[in-house]
Amino acid sequence: MMTITITAFERSPDGGKGLARDLRVRWALEEVGQPYDVRPVSFVAMKTPAYRTLQPFGQIPAYTEGDLVLFESGAIVLHIAEHHEGLLPRDANGRARAITWMFAAVGTIEPPILELVTAKLIEGREPWTAQRMPLVEARIHTRLQELSNHLGDGDWLDGAFSAGDLMMVHVLQRLKPSGILDQHPSLAAYVARGEARPAYQRAFAAQLAINALP
Amino acid sequence: MMTITITAFERSPDGGKGLARDLRVRWALEEVGQPYDVRPVSFVAMKTPAYRTLQPFGQIPAYTEGDLVLFESGAIVLHIAEHHEGLLPRDANGRARAITWMFAAVGTIEPPILELVTAKLIEGREPWTAQRMPLVEARIHTRLQELSNHLGDGDWLDGAFSAGDLMMVHVLQRLKPSGILDQHPSLAAYVARGEARPAYQRAFAAQLAINALP
Repeated sequence: MMTITITAFERSPDGGKGLARDLRVRWALEEVGQPYDVRPVSFVAMKTPAYRTLQPFGQIPAYTEGDLVLFESGAIVLHIAEHHEGLLPRDANGRARAITWMFAAVGTIEPPILELVTAKLIEGREPWTAQRMPLVEARIHTRLQELSNHLGDGDWLDGAFSAGDLMMVHVLQRLKPSGILDQHPSLAAYVARGEARPAYQRAFAAQLAINALP
Repeated sequence: MMTITITAFERSPDGGKGLARDLRVRWALEEVGQPYDVRPVSFVAMKTPAYRTLQPFGQIPAYTEGDLVLFESGAIVLHIAEHHEGLLPRDANGRARAITWMFAAVGTIEPPILELVTAKLIEGREPWTAQRMPLVEARIHTRLQELSNHLGDGDWLDGAFSAGDLMMVHVLQRLKPSGILDQHPSLAAYVARGEARPAYQRAFAAQLAINALP
């Protein structure tokens, strides 16, 4: 076995709430029972040319395994899911549908949530932000209602828990501080089911331990 | 062989410029030489419960092949690439890196571009939009500069043309009307290389033919 190493924030901007994208990769590795090392990087280090050879956009996580270097949490989780049992259905059609939900998480649900994060963190003091915020939130509610309609009374998006759920749960977690998730009770319960998984708990504790260091 | 059917706009909002996401799927199918049928859907039809059984978010494209139903252009392109030669490298590491670029296209490059589209189309008449636009554009330039730095003087993002380039080229095309792409000449040339591929040309002509119908 080759050692798996991921990069993570030396100090996460969320102080250890688990919202940084390394959590997705940690969670996937915990689900399939693969050990991994963590290389913490500072905000300064991750913008250096050396780090950008691992991650061209200067972000975390980057993933190394022997001479393989990957980035993008979705691609890393898919790589893990393809090489270990537990995150993708065995039948070809179910597998393709689980991958569809991975792309839906980052391509359809996450962009309006990122807009909210940007509006708060980057444009929070701009004169237009208070007036604009209802529009930003409305776009999120539209997507969450559609997702909630699809989920119905199911536990997961398509049968058993998959890498699609892992990505979706983590994308939705970003909404918890805003109160928006609680307005969609079935999705709040869906996120809670994800968080209750032992693998999630181990991943969360591991990132919190780094952020709790003095 | 089972018939492949994709959905597409009955009338694309762009009038046939090829910016709708069915083009990614058409292009992938042309690259691997697979025939497909197109089911045009109206803006009204795509928001019906019946259509949402194919695509929960009421968008195009949806993809059917026998009893398999997929959505999300990235997931569909990956499905095609996994089942036919021509869009993914044969070596495992190169394949994983190409998939990384597919996720980077929709997860890192497309979100700030979608913000620009939203600012123009949805918030175009809001009082804050003119003042806010430089911030929106600056976030795009940051990502394009990073992408351009990675591309260097290469033709494609990682060796030979792959599904990662297909996705990235189409995501970048959305910027052409804004003039932003032309400020990054190496990326403009990269997009032009994608557009020059015969498979792209066939895909573009096919979507234009639907939009040119009386």
